[in-house]
Amino acid sequence: MDVISVIRTKRDRGELSDEQIDWVIDAYTRGAVADEQMSALAMAILLNGMNRGEIARWTAAMIASGERMDFSSLSRPTSDKHSTGGVGDKITLPLAPLVAACGAAVPQLSGRGLGHTGGTLDKLESIPGWKALLSNEEMLSVLDGVGSVICAAGDGLAPADKKLYALRDVTGTVEAIPLIASSIMSKKIAEGTGSLVLDVKVGTGAFMKNLEDARELASTMVGLGTDHGVRTVALLTDMATPLGLTAGNALEVRESVEVLAGGGPSDVVELTLALAREMLDAAGLRDVDPAKALADGSAMDVWRRMISAQGGDPDATLPVARETHVVTAPSSGVLTRLDAYDVGVAAWRLGAGRARKEDVVQAGAGVELHAKPGAQVRAGEPLMTLHTDTPERFEYALQAVQGSFDIAPEGTEFTATPIVLDRIA
Amino acid sequence: MDVISVIRTKRDRGELSDEQIDWVIDAYTRGAVADEQMSALAMAILLNGMNRGEIARWTAAMIASGERMDFSSLSRPTSDKHSTGGVGDKITLPLAPLVAACGAAVPQLSGRGLGHTGGTLDKLESIPGWKALLSNEEMLSVLDGVGSVICAAGDGLAPADKKLYALRDVTGTVEAIPLIASSIMSKKIAEGTGSLVLDVKVGTGAFMKNLEDARELASTMVGLGTDHGVRTVALLTDMATPLGLTAGNALEVRESVEVLAGGGPSDVVELTLALAREMLDAAGLRDVDPAKALADGSAMDVWRRMISAQGGDPDATLPVARETHVVTAPSSGVLTRLDAYDVGVAAWRLGAGRARKEDVVQAGAGVELHAKPGAQVRAGEPLMTLHTDTPERFEYALQAVQGSFDIAPEGTEFTATPIVLDRIA
Repeated sequence: MDVISVIRTKRDRGELSDEQIDWVIDAYTRGAVADEQMSALAMAILLNGMNRGEIARWTAAMIASGERMDFSSLSRPTSDKHSTGGVGDKITLPLAPLVAACGAAVPQLSGRGLGHTGGTLDKLESIPGWKALLSNEEMLSVLDGVGSVICAAGDGLAPADKKLYALRDVTGTVEAIPLIASSIMSKKIAEGTGSLVLDVKVGTGAFMKNLEDARELASTMVGLGTDHGVRTVALLTDMATPLGLTAGNALEVRESVEVLAGGGPSDVVELTLALAREMLDAAGLRDVDPAKALADGSAMDVWRRMISAQGGDPDATLPVARETHVVTAPSSGVLTRLDAYDVGVAAWRLGAGRARKEDVVQAGAGVELHAKPGAQVRAGEPLMTLHTDTPERFEYALQAVQGSFDIAPEGTEFTATPIVLDRIA
Repeated sequence: MDVISVIRTKRDRGELSDEQIDWVIDAYTRGAVADEQMSALAMAILLNGMNRGEIARWTAAMIASGERMDFSSLSRPTSDKHSTGGVGDKITLPLAPLVAACGAAVPQLSGRGLGHTGGTLDKLESIPGWKALLSNEEMLSVLDGVGSVICAAGDGLAPADKKLYALRDVTGTVEAIPLIASSIMSKKIAEGTGSLVLDVKVGTGAFMKNLEDARELASTMVGLGTDHGVRTVALLTDMATPLGLTAGNALEVRESVEVLAGGGPSDVVELTLALAREMLDAAGLRDVDPAKALADGSAMDVWRRMISAQGGDPDATLPVARETHVVTAPSSGVLTRLDAYDVGVAAWRLGAGRARKEDVVQAGAGVELHAKPGAQVRAGEPLMTLHTDTPERFEYALQAVQGSFDIAPEGTEFTATPIVLDRIA
């Protein structure tokens, strides 16, 4: 087997054989295939595609590159969630303790943010003392004792994916559905969850800009999960508008705690409950109502125990940015559009995200929204507040939000987009 | 400017701007763009193409990455030739001294072989004492004193191309017409020749398998040369059958010397004269007949002086392989096909070529042909002789030539393919 013949096969629109896929993933993980060879192959895959059989084998080979976890010792059924990433998407924070409070075990291996979408670990790290890095034993112990755990994926899970993901990030080969699907699913299958709910985001603030691409990604991932014995369902959800009223690390933790306290923005509550119902259903817990666990404080109780178990203080004051700048409405009327991508870029430029893996994020930075589409706004009143520790960033962030919203004359009719756009099982 | 946006532009079928091309070539040469990023871009170029404007700018940027030579101090007009590579293609060896004997200066910067096509420098290195590496001053001195020089291209010419060519070779991105054209022409234009004749090979033994691709490559290169003030013409020539009766280093030198002595296989003589006429015409020397310079020994005289000037002994006995194996005709009749690619692979496997840049070639190894298409052959009589120093290679080489020829019943009519298929100016 040689790597040039594998690259040529895909370059010339051929189908990669099982042997070619197994060999190239293993050789790349071992370092026998060089980065410049794998990136040429990734570009050929991005442009010429892979069929279902190739994607399934590619995923299996990435799983086989590392260890697999085993949750069979737990007394509860496991259920996990994965979001393809959006702006203001803090749903994992209230969702994991909520589903645990309803009787499932939720092993949530999460990542850090890169680019305009935030990362769950970055958000939780704004809680003083909380640590993302757990050993497999510590993770199982928190999961067993509390019911949910949110931590960094260990180095042992799908190391081929870890290496390939970092390569794709610097070679313009991220946006390939076969590679996105196999990357997500190899980690989730290796993690060993019994069921999985996928939140596939659609819209300006998401990787998938249109419903058609999102459906293809979702059905590819559902097929991969099902083939590996993981009960998998996907919701396609709106990401044309930011989720909730905050985008930024500590800002989003604060909003998540509001939801766990029974309040919070209605779209965040609605999506949290929709995903919780899917997770409980997939875990075989069909008689539980998650809305009750939000209302009676049992979800908040799991949250507090989960944060404490990972060294965090659930009662600590969250960091606040040193400087704020208010953006006001230039005219009165109905807010008809608020662009998720623009708000995500602004939060990132304010310091909430990172441009390179080694960058440090600001815990307090981000964007706070005072109105969502459908709201009446008045000229001169606050539309959003920008937060940062480094005020020289305001100008660059303001450029991003300048064209991010539309205000229509008062009386204009406005039809809200539903949060959940489709369901694929 | 950042490399990912350049990669994305081409990945998404956009046109690269002049600024993007200048920046990416310069940054890659400096090491600021990594190999894995350039290979992803090369694959996107291979699959999505470049237009004439992009190819012109890409070529100009590669020329600008290094030094340019200047032959204006010479009293004679310069003319150079480049072949896209074939099996048994020793034409440079008789051609350079022949054209010099007719009054032009021929600065022939050549390469080593990789894969099934041989390299001019490998062939000449089978002459005891001959050295390929000359400084720019040594090269000019041989060119001025003798009229022709064949040597390795210095490191200073188009270093971007040198780096990119090595990368393409290991990433399955060689076969892209924009990259082949810009690679060849950047070196030839930087070299500073006043006129250039391109021998674009077509057929199984060539990079270009069909006339359509070869025409596109040829007209792209002619356009690039003309735009840079180099009088450029291309001949499209047959490479379905090996050139002459030998493929291998010392074997081909011997055949070249036969041509310079006024003998040699008719196809080699015909192509040498056709290319010589084009080179002399492009150099403005329209009244000279190269056939005369072959017949009167003046070309042979330049050859001997050129070999001596580079340390070689033109009278030395050439190396001979230690072992030979004869392949006989399995039936009697007319030889209707003899596949260039198969013969090239056999010569390569016998030790005449290299699989990796660092491999050493055998001077005596190769294939000697006893019949060419159109010839009458008799069952049991020799068709070809395989030469090698390492007889364990015979079996592997025999596999390559097994299906390399067709013998039709006696009396079958045979129409020979012309050597020169087309001319593009």
